Amino acid sequence: MTKWYEKSGDQGDVILSTRIRLARNIKEYPFPGRLSLDQRQKVEKAVCGSVGQCMQLIGSPYRFINMEDISKTDAVSLVERHLVSPEFISDTRGRGLILSDDESVSIMINEEDHLRIQVMREGLALDQAYSVADKLDTLLNERLDFAFDERLGYLTQCPTNLGTGMRASLMLHLPALQESGVMGRVANSLSKLGLAIRGIYGEGSEPVGAIYQLSNQVTLGLSEKEAIENLGRIAMQLVSQERAARKTLSKNIETQDSICRSLGILQNARMLTNDEFMKLLSKIRIGISEGLIPNISYDKLNALMVRVQPATIMLPGGQTLSPAQRDVLRAKTVREALAPVG
Amino acid sequence: MTKWYEKSGDQGDVILSTRIRLARNIKEYPFPGRLSLDQRQKVEKAVCGSVGQCMQLIGSPYRFINMEDISKTDAVSLVERHLVSPEFISDTRGRGLILSDDESVSIMINEEDHLRIQVMREGLALDQAYSVADKLDTLLNERLDFAFDERLGYLTQCPTNLGTGMRASLMLHLPALQESGVMGRVANSLSKLGLAIRGIYGEGSEPVGAIYQLSNQVTLGLSEKEAIENLGRIAMQLVSQERAARKTLSKNIETQDSICRSLGILQNARMLTNDEFMKLLSKIRIGISEGLIPNISYDKLNALMVRVQPATIMLPGGQTLSPAQRDVLRAKTVREALAPVG
Repeated sequence: MTKWYEKSGDQGDVILSTRIRLARNIKEYPFPGRLSLDQRQKVEKAVCGSVGQCMQLIGSPYRFINMEDISKTDAVSLVERHLVSPEFISDTRGRGLILSDDESVSIMINEEDHLRIQVMREGLALDQAYSVADKLDTLLNERLDFAFDERLGYLTQCPTNLGTGMRASLMLHLPALQESGVMGRVANSLSKLGLAIRGIYGEGSEPVGAIYQLSNQVTLGLSEKEAIENLGRIAMQLVSQERAARKTLSKNIETQDSICRSLGILQNARMLTNDEFMKLLSKIRIGISEGLIPNISYDKLNALMVRVQPATIMLPGGQTLSPAQRDVLRAKTVREALAPVG
Repeated sequence: MTKWYEKSGDQGDVILSTRIRLARNIKEYPFPGRLSLDQRQKVEKAVCGSVGQCMQLIGSPYRFINMEDISKTDAVSLVERHLVSPEFISDTRGRGLILSDDESVSIMINEEDHLRIQVMREGLALDQAYSVADKLDTLLNERLDFAFDERLGYLTQCPTNLGTGMRASLMLHLPALQESGVMGRVANSLSKLGLAIRGIYGEGSEPVGAIYQLSNQVTLGLSEKEAIENLGRIAMQLVSQERAARKTLSKNIETQDSICRSLGILQNARMLTNDEFMKLLSKIRIGISEGLIPNISYDKLNALMVRVQPATIMLPGGQTLSPAQRDVLRAKTVREALAPVG
């Protein structure tokens, strides 16, 4: 089955993906930080008992993954696919994951909150993603009875999520803005608008391959709809700025040279670290948007980006590989995917 | 007409080309260093008067180039094609060049000696090249009467050429020996055997793209045949060593990676300095000999190597280009020549 991330969507030259995440807790249990292992398992059981019908109602075939049962590689791959947080796999006891077959809908059980409902979509698709999350939330609420306060909204373990409990985020590719050195200033302005911009793997992480995550910070005092509209509007401003910066940048023969060489390296290298791959991929993406590279689609790159991540790349072979072996396999995978069309 | 350097020859994986050069002086004139401009022109006229018939007898259509009449670019291109020495174009007065249409036979008039007869061939072809040079020498001697001493042999302006007046040289591509750091030791051993090994543009020059010139140093006390046999035998030892070193080297995935990336860069770059081009070309040549790069012939590379040299690359367009413009044109030329076969 095609995964959601094997496609590109609206504004796909700059916006890689959309994510809506809802933090929810079941009224009758303490927050996860206060749960005994026994209670965690009860929460897990409760969620699993209710989720089947809900997933069916939103039309998403799914599976349940007991986090204690899977290998380290499988777990890290889930992080690489942005399905779970790094914290979620650091201690797997009493934790589980509901995952739709196309991987666009997932529910982490017993992460920071009892439920972290997550919906992802390719490109800019805030309304669509929110609509699915909202539907699933409503269905689950009917069965699980979420902790809710008239004044504070949804109750969450961390007060920064109180209110809507919603984090909407967009994965943005901003190589030209990064190159022109304005990202520090951009981040400052965004924080005044109630938004945060961070590296690809969330808080504290470096922007790998110029991929940034833009998300709302405010969950109290405004509705989900308002938060999403605000995020979408500002994101589109960034998209315009990035596009203008790319146009300017790609007039330089040096930039064109660097973009085209990146393609040549990806099509020919015999070893590729993930870091180098991400850097070269970033160049290729500009090459496509600026018309320097024909015959390669964003879809293909989006799929490839996930497929060659350090843990995910080991999944098809089912063997643990050394970093050097992974680099060789990554180069081969990339080479085959991007082979020049005759 | 196809030029001699647009082909590859015997032992073409390591031996790029063969050159035989004979230094000759006309008895009735002082050496060029002692010639007035007027006398130089007389020498030029004498050579031109005799050479036509001789070139016809060896079956080489040719043209005469008065060095005073050509542009700086044309002159530098002659150096790049190894047809004349850098010294020859530094002062062009009273100097001329006889050049066969395929550029394999050339005669510099009034370089260090009155005549420098030069015959070039692709690959290892010492006997064939010598045979042509010898024939031409004999024919010219009948008409010009070369300065010759029973004891000292052919008289030359520089005593290092006394005797046969012959310099036989081979252009060798020795990237693996260079990489394994043995070239200093090799050069030492060779000098004890009466041979010298130098960078591609002769004495004092650095080896560009791991291309070396191997030549005999001794012109007194042994025959041309002996000198050529000695050179050929030792060259074949170097060829064997280079091949063994390449085999070892190319087992490394790092080497394979570097070779394949080089191809990717050459096929995609938008700017290429000549120096980078030569370095990458060197890798490609190993890639071909070690079976890592199919579909590219040494012929093509040999032709390309000459075609994109700094002055030669400007010849087809007939315009003077800045270094940056040349880098762009070089990248385009290389890209088109090495375009991947679908």
